[in-house]
Amino acid sequence: MTAHIYTAFDEELKYLMRRISEMGGLAEQMVGESVRALVNSDAALAQKVISDDVIMDNAEREVGDKAIVTIAKRQPMAADLREIIGALRIASDLERVGDLGKNNAKRVMAVQGTGVPRKLARGIEHLSELAMTQLKEVLDVYTTRSAEKAKSIRDRDEEIDAIYTSLFRELLTYMMEDPRNITTCTHLLFCAKNIERIGDHATNIAETIYYMATGAQPEGERPKDDTTTAFGVAD
Amino acid sequence: MTAHIYTAFDEELKYLMRRISEMGGLAEQMVGESVRALVNSDAALAQKVISDDVIMDNAEREVGDKAIVTIAKRQPMAADLREIIGALRIASDLERVGDLGKNNAKRVMAVQGTGVPRKLARGIEHLSELAMTQLKEVLDVYTTRSAEKAKSIRDRDEEIDAIYTSLFRELLTYMMEDPRNITTCTHLLFCAKNIERIGDHATNIAETIYYMATGAQPEGERPKDDTTTAFGVAD
Repeated sequence: MTAHIYTAFDEELKYLMRRISEMGGLAEQMVGESVRALVNSDAALAQKVISDDVIMDNAEREVGDKAIVTIAKRQPMAADLREIIGALRIASDLERVGDLGKNNAKRVMAVQGTGVPRKLARGIEHLSELAMTQLKEVLDVYTTRSAEKAKSIRDRDEEIDAIYTSLFRELLTYMMEDPRNITTCTHLLFCAKNIERIGDHATNIAETIYYMATGAQPEGERPKDDTTTAFGVAD
Repeated sequence: MTAHIYTAFDEELKYLMRRISEMGGLAEQMVGESVRALVNSDAALAQKVISDDVIMDNAEREVGDKAIVTIAKRQPMAADLREIIGALRIASDLERVGDLGKNNAKRVMAVQGTGVPRKLARGIEHLSELAMTQLKEVLDVYTTRSAEKAKSIRDRDEEIDAIYTSLFRELLTYMMEDPRNITTCTHLLFCAKNIERIGDHATNIAETIYYMATGAQPEGERPKDDTTTAFGVAD
């Protein structure tokens, strides 16, 4: 951040940063808890994640309102303006991560009857650990504003996609083995896809941080889609 | 829009509106074509949708860049600032709609081997017609800026959710009847979910237009999640 004459403006930027960090912490927690609830069929924990989503929604709205007021009042230029627009974008990505955590939590009740097979549970846990690590790292980078690190996180989404693809394959196999697995495995497919999308949002945030730091978009195509879309019926 | 001293500013706002309308038209087209490609196993049309996504990505970036430059240069207040922030948000929703169309197009090749059963194809078409109507209407409201109409579109997402839920149920039934349907039906499940999400983005846009017109968020909870998350194994 550059030096300002108005210290009140610094306070406003700090407020935005603090709220974003809080949202990030809550998003991480919601993702972790939703997967724990799923794996342990813990309906109470799932319910907690569902209620926490209201906090996220309100936080996004408050960040949005504050951002607009700050732009209108301070009329910031260049880096300061990017700072505020970036906060808006990151808040929106974090709110979506919260939604995805909530969506997974809602599926806990649906799979409770059968429980989640141990092997699939481990796959989901592994996938969510990767997504949470990515989210955690990107939030650390938000504090340091390293364009270099932001770019390296963005370029690393492929690991999550690879795990997601192998989990997708395994879920299809379970379904084919026994039709009684179909409903549970369908919910787990959506859970896995939700976690893969959490990784996408972490990648979005990394791109936003890069933009905040440099004023540019990172170079090079970014793999935004998973590879399971190409799975033919012969698989 | 209020009257400005700078007609150059009006030009900039008009540029943003025009680009948003173009993006909206392309998004609609991509959604329609991806479903047509899916239902007719038309790989060439699917490929066209996939390439069109690059145009959407570039358009979103250009709207973003223009929005930032306009804020920095003109330092707009109140309604004008909301106009620009709103354009940013709508461009982001439309870009996501394009992604979802592309994702559906990518699945065309995967289901080509078996084709899509007629009854399921009709379900997907019906769902996509509703989503496209919602998208079309919301883009019309973007031109007229009627807060009233924006709110009524936002409150109407439930029809899409109902159709999605019945399609979800039907897809599960097909899978259970014959394990050879599982891979195709899994892709169709994701296609249906993608279309349901397109409806969500139309709803987001309606909320943004309401905000642009009034400076406030529409009152009342909005049903953001589909109801299939609660489908137990007994279904």
